[in-house]
Amino acid sequence: MSENKPRVLLFEEAVGLTKFELGGKGYGLVEMTRIGLPVPPGLNIPTYVCREYYSTGRFPDGLIDEVREKLRIIEERVGRRFGSTERPLLVSVRSGAPYSMPGMMDTILNLGLNDEIVKSLAGETRDERFAYDSYRRLIQMFGKIVLGVKDEKFDEIIEEHKKKLGIKHDIEISAEEWKKIIEEFKELIKKEAGIEFPQDPWEQLRMAIEAVFKSWNNPRAIVYRKTYNIPEDLYTAVNIQMMVFGNLGFDSGTGVGFTRNPSTGEKKLYGEYLLNAQGEDVVAGIRTPKPLEELKNELTQVYEELLRVSEILEKHFREMQDFEFTIQEGKLYLLQTRNGKRTAQAAVKIAVEMVNEGLITKEEAISRIEPNDLNQLLHPRIDPNVKSKPIAKGLNASPGAATGKVVFTADEAAELGSKGEKVILVRPETKPEDIHGMIAAQGILTSRGGMTSHAAVVARGMGKPAVVGAEMIKIDLDKEVFTVNGAQVRKFDVITIDGTTGHVYLGAVPTIEPELSGELQILLSWADEIRRLGVRANAETPAAARKAREFGAEGIGLARTERMFNAPDRLPIVYELIFAETEEERWNAVKKLLPMFKSDFKQIFREMAGYPVTVRLLDLPLHEFLPRMEELIQEVTELRIKAKSRKKGYKKAMKLLQEKERILKRALQLAEHNPMIGHRGCRLGITYPEIYRIQTRAILEAALELKKESVEVHPEIMIPLVSEANELSILRKIVEDEAEKVFQEYGDRIEFHVGTMIETPRAALTASEIAKVADFFSFGTNDLTQMTFGFSRDDAEAKFMAQYLGKKILSHNPFEKIDEKGVGRLVKIGTKEGKQANPKLIVGICGEHGGDPDSIRLFEEAGLDYVSCSPYRVPIARLAAAQARLKELAVKITV
Amino acid sequence: MSENKPRVLLFEEAVGLTKFELGGKGYGLVEMTRIGLPVPPGLNIPTYVCREYYSTGRFPDGLIDEVREKLRIIEERVGRRFGSTERPLLVSVRSGAPYSMPGMMDTILNLGLNDEIVKSLAGETRDERFAYDSYRRLIQMFGKIVLGVKDEKFDEIIEEHKKKLGIKHDIEISAEEWKKIIEEFKELIKKEAGIEFPQDPWEQLRMAIEAVFKSWNNPRAIVYRKTYNIPEDLYTAVNIQMMVFGNLGFDSGTGVGFTRNPSTGEKKLYGEYLLNAQGEDVVAGIRTPKPLEELKNELTQVYEELLRVSEILEKHFREMQDFEFTIQEGKLYLLQTRNGKRTAQAAVKIAVEMVNEGLITKEEAISRIEPNDLNQLLHPRIDPNVKSKPIAKGLNASPGAATGKVVFTADEAAELGSKGEKVILVRPETKPEDIHGMIAAQGILTSRGGMTSHAAVVARGMGKPAVVGAEMIKIDLDKEVFTVNGAQVRKFDVITIDGTTGHVYLGAVPTIEPELSGELQILLSWADEIRRLGVRANAETPAAARKAREFGAEGIGLARTERMFNAPDRLPIVYELIFAETEEERWNAVKKLLPMFKSDFKQIFREMAGYPVTVRLLDLPLHEFLPRMEELIQEVTELRIKAKSRKKGYKKAMKLLQEKERILKRALQLAEHNPMIGHRGCRLGITYPEIYRIQTRAILEAALELKKESVEVHPEIMIPLVSEANELSILRKIVEDEAEKVFQEYGDRIEFHVGTMIETPRAALTASEIAKVADFFSFGTNDLTQMTFGFSRDDAEAKFMAQYLGKKILSHNPFEKIDEKGVGRLVKIGTKEGKQANPKLIVGICGEHGGDPDSIRLFEEAGLDYVSCSPYRVPIARLAAAQARLKELAVKITV
Repeated sequence: MSENKPRVLLFEEAVGLTKFELGGKGYGLVEMTRIGLPVPPGLNIPTYVCREYYSTGRFPDGLIDEVREKLRIIEERVGRRFGSTERPLLVSVRSGAPYSMPGMMDTILNLGLNDEIVKSLAGETRDERFAYDSYRRLIQMFGKIVLGVKDEKFDEIIEEHKKKLGIKHDIEISAEEWKKIIEEFKELIKKEAGIEFPQDPWEQLRMAIEAVFKSWNNPRAIVYRKTYNIPEDLYTAVNIQMMVFGNLGFDSGTGVGFTRNPSTGEKKLYGEYLLNAQGEDVVAGIRTPKPLEELKNELTQVYEELLRVSEILEKHFREMQDFEFTIQEGKLYLLQTRNGKRTAQAAVKIAVEMVNEGLITKEEAISRIEPNDLNQLLHPRIDPNVKSKPIAKGLNASPGAATGKVVFTADEAAELGSKGEKVILVRPETKPEDIHGMIAAQGILTSRGGMTSHAAVVARGMGKPAVVGAEMIKIDLDKEVFTVNGAQVRKFDVITIDGTTGHVYLGAVPTIEPELSGELQILLSWADEIRRLGVRANAETPAAARKAREFGAEGIGLARTERMFNAPDRLPIVYELIFAETEEERWNAVKKLLPMFKSDFKQIFREMAGYPVTVRLLDLPLHEFLPRMEELIQEVTELRIKAKSRKKGYKKAMKLLQEKERILKRALQLAEHNPMIGHRGCRLGITYPEIYRIQTRAILEAALELKKESVEVHPEIMIPLVSEANELSILRKIVEDEAEKVFQEYGDRIEFHVGTMIETPRAALTASEIAKVADFFSFGTNDLTQMTFGFSRDDAEAKFMAQYLGKKILSHNPFEKIDEKGVGRLVKIGTKEGKQANPKLIVGICGEHGGDPDSIRLFEEAGLDYVSCSPYRVPIARLAAAQARLKELAVKITV
Repeated sequence: MSENKPRVLLFEEAVGLTKFELGGKGYGLVEMTRIGLPVPPGLNIPTYVCREYYSTGRFPDGLIDEVREKLRIIEERVGRRFGSTERPLLVSVRSGAPYSMPGMMDTILNLGLNDEIVKSLAGETRDERFAYDSYRRLIQMFGKIVLGVKDEKFDEIIEEHKKKLGIKHDIEISAEEWKKIIEEFKELIKKEAGIEFPQDPWEQLRMAIEAVFKSWNNPRAIVYRKTYNIPEDLYTAVNIQMMVFGNLGFDSGTGVGFTRNPSTGEKKLYGEYLLNAQGEDVVAGIRTPKPLEELKNELTQVYEELLRVSEILEKHFREMQDFEFTIQEGKLYLLQTRNGKRTAQAAVKIAVEMVNEGLITKEEAISRIEPNDLNQLLHPRIDPNVKSKPIAKGLNASPGAATGKVVFTADEAAELGSKGEKVILVRPETKPEDIHGMIAAQGILTSRGGMTSHAAVVARGMGKPAVVGAEMIKIDLDKEVFTVNGAQVRKFDVITIDGTTGHVYLGAVPTIEPELSGELQILLSWADEIRRLGVRANAETPAAARKAREFGAEGIGLARTERMFNAPDRLPIVYELIFAETEEERWNAVKKLLPMFKSDFKQIFREMAGYPVTVRLLDLPLHEFLPRMEELIQEVTELRIKAKSRKKGYKKAMKLLQEKERILKRALQLAEHNPMIGHRGCRLGITYPEIYRIQTRAILEAALELKKESVEVHPEIMIPLVSEANELSILRKIVEDEAEKVFQEYGDRIEFHVGTMIETPRAALTASEIAKVADFFSFGTNDLTQMTFGFSRDDAEAKFMAQYLGKKILSHNPFEKIDEKGVGRLVKIGTKEGKQANPKLIVGICGEHGGDPDSIRLFEEAGLDYVSCSPYRVPIARLAAAQARLKELAVKITV
């Protein structure tokens, strides 16, 4: 018996109950009632009654009597009576769960009408057509929602009548015609549901309440709860409320209001209304609602009442409200209020202004913005006002929208790009040697590869839009055309890609440029005051470094160096390195790269003057710089046949064959079964120390030369893929020896740090040993996730991740949001034991999770010192870090 | 001042000091002195004096005076005087660290001679030649060891003299000639070392003692200590002992004895001797020593004395002793004793017999056998008495020796094998479709691949000798020949491979068959009484299962099922499965495999009647069953050109092309970047549940049908590669649903368990969740090692493991001996948290570490329930488990 809590409450009696008891809608109605806003009187049956319904398996005994008792009070107050043919009281019945939930029963209006009472309503309102329209609406809604008769069947009947009469709109149907339709509706219900439409208003009410209870467990609602992790045991409340009518003439009406503009955030009442209409009519879309401002002229007093209401609502709820209202014969009634949905731009503006207005604190302002929503503000995006149908969808690998001509080779992209043309580079997948084309292109589209494919990683690093793994696109490189669903897209055709959604559009779809508004800057400055975590950027080009500074990064947490080997002018030297057989030959090869490397580093250091720059030494296996094995084998096979043929061109083929065979042979020697866990990272540094030596030299020579120009440089040298402390101590020695040589040669010194990525499980588990030879740790959570799960990311995302997420084996993709139980546990172990062993150790994270708000929460909890993410996520990370800090402080206070 | 401990002790004074103070040699001498054996009198300078030498950085003050004082006592006793020209006392100086250590100073003999004293010795012995030979030996040893003059330079001088005289052996050199040589030796020392050979015997002694101290830190000794983890701070003792001479005529001599036969273990005095010789002469190998039995005839009394000594030594040391002796003019002296090295066979026999003799306990017997040494007894091996030179060396992938004719295809191996011919299958690497050839062959030799390559894993599973990754071998499959170092080996040439060492021999090298001796069986039965860990076998054929039972396995801990898909008659059906596009098509394909699977399982279950059999459901990615991508591309490219050519056979080529293109297309679809961490294991089970359903069905139908024949079956179904509890709960449900169907159809039930491999770091870290849906865990430490380190085993062993071990980055290969800090920590976490969450959970390990004694120690400590290893390692594991238990109990008692 629900611990003797009242099962039915008047709105004014329910003050003090929580949203979990009253449901969202009920809570809003009760609060508005409490502060004296004009709410039609009504009752709330709290969620615990619904729980009782499920636990006992039957409709609660005596519940209807309790409803009757409370309704009597309302009847007295308004001078109407439910079920009476004189001055009948009509009610609506609406569900209201703690969280709004599509799929649950919504609303039944006009409850309390029957064949007799409808006549009384017609008499009282002197509007027969209104009365019978109201009655047929009740029968239709009741039939559909309570009795499960399909809506189309009702519509068919109405359509037949309109056809017969030769009319187009419902509004033209007369009272007499509605009476005929009502009879047919009742027949339909009898036939389909096997029972008569109940004439007893109390029976109507009982059945409607039970329908609300039942709707908690309808399949769509269950799926929705699973999807959004809403607990199964919250249940729904029921709201029973006196009907008011917006369709009683042109001093009546209905509408929705926002206390501020939900699109721009402007502090001004915003909304739409229709006179002589019910809420349904607005939804039906036959008549176009008018902007709320016009109401000022049509019903001035009501408009001013709305302004007053809007102010009261905001003061009370301390949040922008989205409310529904009805005007009945000049009188305003509020039917619902809730926190209003808004664009990211509006959210930021509103939060900042509310702080300035003294409505909320800075901490509240920060807590109210969903960090990921800022994404909308930080990249060019498809204009949301333009409706376009995408021709394909791939993975949303790097956010932002871009438009350009389709080209199929990196060379062509580079050529056109240098002429100022905008191009989209379309490839099955990209390779290191395509970099120049990727730089020149506006965006990248590939038909293969996952979220860490070359195209995806490089594009994200560049902040360039990319859609990858769009498998429905079939690319024919020879013919320079791609087909998708039968359509052909040729070279130089214009397409638009949206890396935020993964959509691909034909033609130029209008886009909007990002702007870092003044309000956002203020909000982020508050975030900076609150957060404990530092925020750095992953950046490896001067442009990216500049962007990162613009967005507030406090240094670079990851500067990859692969790009420095990939440039077309350097690949021949890298080949020399790959084919070298002795240490001396290798040293001679890499020495040639020194001036280029040094120039690269200088550019980045200049952009980040005064801030630390963490340079990761070469991580990729050497074979990544060679052509793909499949291509090589095909080429060599073809050349062999041609060379043997003794036909035209065979001598040339023989010569080329020799060269290709040499490359193939080396590629076969270097080939690996599982390159992700193969001969890369520090393992390269140990087997080919020359590479790390030259990189160290380039970094420190660059730093020393800038020092002469009074540019402040804080280089941090980061060794990748360490799994054992000895690896780091050997490489640290190599780095320090080379540094000493450089210092001797330059007659000057500079402070620098040496640290390591923590990206293998063993590195985290042996952090106490590694910390003794490291100045800093940086968690590489991409690789750490791969190894902790044993998931090769590219393979997992192509082969089984979709099924894993669909079947809820994983609640989220662990490459996007950090896996707390496995990877997160290792991050905590590594941080704690590392800092214990070396109290000066600085600990950061530079995997993609560094820009994910949920993951940042864990990094705050684990006690990291900073996160590092792509430049375009820096503002998101700043905000998320502040939120994480606030939550962490709350936890500490609670504990 | 070393806490006032005496710095020089007479042997008889040193009783009670430990081996760590006296060194191994000193301890033996002191003990022998104590029990009254004839030891030449002497002094020991304990290790702590050497420690003092290093801590103060100089030769200890007054040490020589203390030596002098103690030596006086010996002088009195023997009636000789050190440094006197009358009845001079000569001494030897020898180092003696707690562990014998190559690279340290060994011995200087004849100390105390100089230009004058040598004359006295000549007079006293009436053997001038002996005296001057002794003197030149002193100068030579002193020059070499104390003064660092190269030995060759001394030898050159002797050789010149012999050449000049036209003689061959040192023994022919006269006293006069030695005198000349001595003069030249002294010149040499002056020239090379810059000082005169010291004529003062006390100076000789001081310098010799210091040389012993210094030798503790010579580079070879340091490397040796690092290699064998011998602590740096043990230091060495010095032994100074009166010289006795075995070269004073034919009633003198020298020899070594073993208290039992070190080769067979037979309880009988064994050894060798030479009359009229010094120890050096035995080593020089010019004269061949005689078996000790012959001494019975030559010097009966001494022989009997030796028998008595042998018995006393064993009683005292309770171990088989290896001792050195010298006979001087009919009197026996013992110069050294230590525990004797022995073959595995001897070790077992001796240990068991000593228990029976009441000398030692069963626990001691068990502790004394190095489990890995049993390997020698469990596989056929190259006869150690035959000297053969290998033509190549590869990885010792699967132990044992095998001889046969070389064949280059699996088909040919199978064909010849079926005719009873012995063949060795030689391939660049093996593939699943080669299985029939591998079964038929005596052994496998590959030129590519590491310790977990297909060839290695399958061969170990079969207990079949294999040498893999012998890269020096160049195989030409077309010509059916392989070349190595210029030599050619053709098809049908006979070779012998030794999988225990990795050697390959030309021709048939004699081998010895293994025998599980009665003593070994007794020893293992004692081990079984002591051990707590269960021992199971990894076996997937009836033959392997039978072998496992023979060797004492208590069930199968890992029956892989890949073999059941690989057989040539099944591959066409597996292709159907691979090319199927719907669940129904896949089910129709796998259904055809049911009778074959069932028959496989029945055979294994029958062999293991009464014991658990853990069947691992399919783990390999599907593309492993397709041909290699490289081959496919080459074939398709060739066929395309041929099909286009319109030349002879182009129509056939077109048809074949179609089929090959179909396969290539599918292979490309299924191809993975990192298959080791890709779409395999339970991920296959989730995406293609049909496969696990049919396997479950086959297991349970087989079990139920055997139940009718009263064969007791305990099936355990094991899901591989789980990293998240949900994976296991979904698959457990699929398995249980299928089981229920089978039980319904058969109208009978059988108990079975469902469990999982723990082989991803995340599985270990989330063991508390996984344990709730598992009946058992089995650590797959091969994969767990790969993922914890981020080492792809094949790639690591081919590319950088050798350097990592060489540079001591890793102290051992973690795929052979478990990595305690990383992988071991995960094993402990997984076991502890798994058992806490589910107290009924059974935890085992089935990676290769299951047969490694050091790893077994960790598994005992971690509280596992059993280990599972290859059948041939079962006896090793039984012994190692007993030793681990004894150590664990010792730790518990200490703690």
